[in-house]
Amino acid sequence: MVGAGQLARMTYQASIPLGIGFRVLADRPDDSAALVCPAVTVGDYHRLEDLLAFAARCDVLTFDHEHVPAEHLAALAEAGVTVAPGGAALRYAQDKLAMRDELTRLGASCPRYAPVASPEDVAAFAAQVGWPVVLKAVRGGYDGRGVWVCGGPDQAAEVLGYGVCMLAEEHVPFVRELAALVARSPHRQGAVYPIVQTVQREGVCREVLAPAPGLTPVLAEDAQQLALELADALGVTGLLAVELFETSRGLLVNELAMRPHNSGHWTIEGARTSQFEQHLRAVLDLPLGAPQSAAPQVVMANVFGAADLAGAGADIYDRYIHVMAADPGVKVHMYGKEPRPGRKIGHVTVAGTGVAALRDRATRAASYLGTGKELAE
Amino acid sequence: MVGAGQLARMTYQASIPLGIGFRVLADRPDDSAALVCPAVTVGDYHRLEDLLAFAARCDVLTFDHEHVPAEHLAALAEAGVTVAPGGAALRYAQDKLAMRDELTRLGASCPRYAPVASPEDVAAFAAQVGWPVVLKAVRGGYDGRGVWVCGGPDQAAEVLGYGVCMLAEEHVPFVRELAALVARSPHRQGAVYPIVQTVQREGVCREVLAPAPGLTPVLAEDAQQLALELADALGVTGLLAVELFETSRGLLVNELAMRPHNSGHWTIEGARTSQFEQHLRAVLDLPLGAPQSAAPQVVMANVFGAADLAGAGADIYDRYIHVMAADPGVKVHMYGKEPRPGRKIGHVTVAGTGVAALRDRATRAASYLGTGKELAE
Repeated sequence: MVGAGQLARMTYQASIPLGIGFRVLADRPDDSAALVCPAVTVGDYHRLEDLLAFAARCDVLTFDHEHVPAEHLAALAEAGVTVAPGGAALRYAQDKLAMRDELTRLGASCPRYAPVASPEDVAAFAAQVGWPVVLKAVRGGYDGRGVWVCGGPDQAAEVLGYGVCMLAEEHVPFVRELAALVARSPHRQGAVYPIVQTVQREGVCREVLAPAPGLTPVLAEDAQQLALELADALGVTGLLAVELFETSRGLLVNELAMRPHNSGHWTIEGARTSQFEQHLRAVLDLPLGAPQSAAPQVVMANVFGAADLAGAGADIYDRYIHVMAADPGVKVHMYGKEPRPGRKIGHVTVAGTGVAALRDRATRAASYLGTGKELAE
Repeated sequence: MVGAGQLARMTYQASIPLGIGFRVLADRPDDSAALVCPAVTVGDYHRLEDLLAFAARCDVLTFDHEHVPAEHLAALAEAGVTVAPGGAALRYAQDKLAMRDELTRLGASCPRYAPVASPEDVAAFAAQVGWPVVLKAVRGGYDGRGVWVCGGPDQAAEVLGYGVCMLAEEHVPFVRELAALVARSPHRQGAVYPIVQTVQREGVCREVLAPAPGLTPVLAEDAQQLALELADALGVTGLLAVELFETSRGLLVNELAMRPHNSGHWTIEGARTSQFEQHLRAVLDLPLGAPQSAAPQVVMANVFGAADLAGAGADIYDRYIHVMAADPGVKVHMYGKEPRPGRKIGHVTVAGTGVAALRDRATRAASYLGTGKELAE
């Protein structure tokens, strides 16, 4: 796996029971996955020679992120490396404009969009869809980074001044955000997880409710079917996460990711097959595992670092005492990451019945792990 | 963790999400846990200096097996090492005669027993309880090793000829075998899992049914209470597995183990807190996790190596294709062990409802993984 963040760390965990040899290409020896996996190569995924040398020690190359340059993906494939997902599919997770064009071609509903290069382009687009307008970096964004909601021309001009290739999208008045997670194998087997609701704040996922509470069976099936069809049409090998807006005019595709995804962390305890095991099965062309829920309702909440924690990692033991005593059923996943303010450093999962109570438990535990303080009532 | 077998391997997996630093003292660099954990010390647990050097790098020392000599456990404690469980408790898992004497003193029901040193001792014991008589090595037995069912004096004389310290026990006509698994922390918190049925063949556990089908609530609670009381009375830190005979005269204690136990592997998917996480919590004096089942019925089946597999480890990929295609819900746990005939090399778990169907699925998958052949109908 290229990249050694928490996704690689959790994929490594899933590889152990299957006895799968697992190797990470890490930026640094203290990356999240590099701390727990014995087979670590430190290298730079921007350098083709590093990727080729790493790939020579693997049967299949897969990814913890979408940042490997497209030309390197092509060169790896040309050199005979099995890359999963392949560059042709990954392009749609790397390039938001290519993604929008392809989804439109495939007939999938999206927010209205336009490539923009100047304030005049944005103004012309806003004249059609109204302000605010969402500007997105065509490449490189994640977790709310590379996305700006612009209330008017001045703000848009400032964002365009960052000098990166931009895309404008209408600001969709959605009811809520959903995510569909699907796996597809080279044998073209597909497996789709229950549709979840993601709760975002400041563009960052805070909670995932699995399944999405109160989602109509028709919409749930539409979303699952859409994800299966997209995975097939885009030629994905491995996981595809489809972030969706639920709107008064139906489901719109927001973003795509082709890797284990934050919206699927709940599957570690909450589904028969975790997304991490599923990704491994798919990229190794093994039959896919059962994606069904293992509990009536599951809630995941992310843990974020807080300012006062920086450099005080030893604290975590005291926090465990508090969180585990308060709630013996909460499942803790910490990523071994330095707790910088606002940085995603872990997540917690609770399973059972009653979404309100589960959200209360999950957010309390996540907040205390991140900040060392009780949530305000 | 001293010892790097599959129990250490699975404990390591549980340590990753908690971000717990985990180190193994392995006999060899290719031991099951040493293959997956980056922090490996190769050393000999029979040598005090190896244990002391290893312990110097750990906050708490715990065990994958019960074979560390008692005098070394005492010396470690004297040197200020936190040993969990401590030598005073571990003695009752190491020395079957001490265990029987202590259980008797505590009022726990056991098979009738006597220390034996000669054929005359066995004959005298058999005169009270009848043949067959069970001879057990007082120290060092596990997985059916060190246990001999003797039909008469000749066989007993032969077993005594092995020259190890022996204990005689009555051959109990049990209905079935059960196991109770409990965790206890230094704070004296206890947590007990649902009582399971273990299915043995030739003295080796083949399947575990969790919970034990049709067990009366009274017997289940008796068994749980017994395990909690024993863990407390024996001063256990960590896990205590109590193997039980269900008989017409109630529950009798067969064996004790103070570590993660084969009868608890089902908890990885089947309980809110796996036994491996629970052991870590207990030895680190963290609050214990919820031991409740996460599914109505769980069945675990062990995978054993077969003769024709020796040296053909690459085969396992083809077996995965078969097993995973036949049953997308089966959870596979392979231990990275060379598949010698009869050697326990992995286990599988299935969860759902209906014990007969689950047993069928689990034993089919386990058999195919071990032998590459379908179970005979």
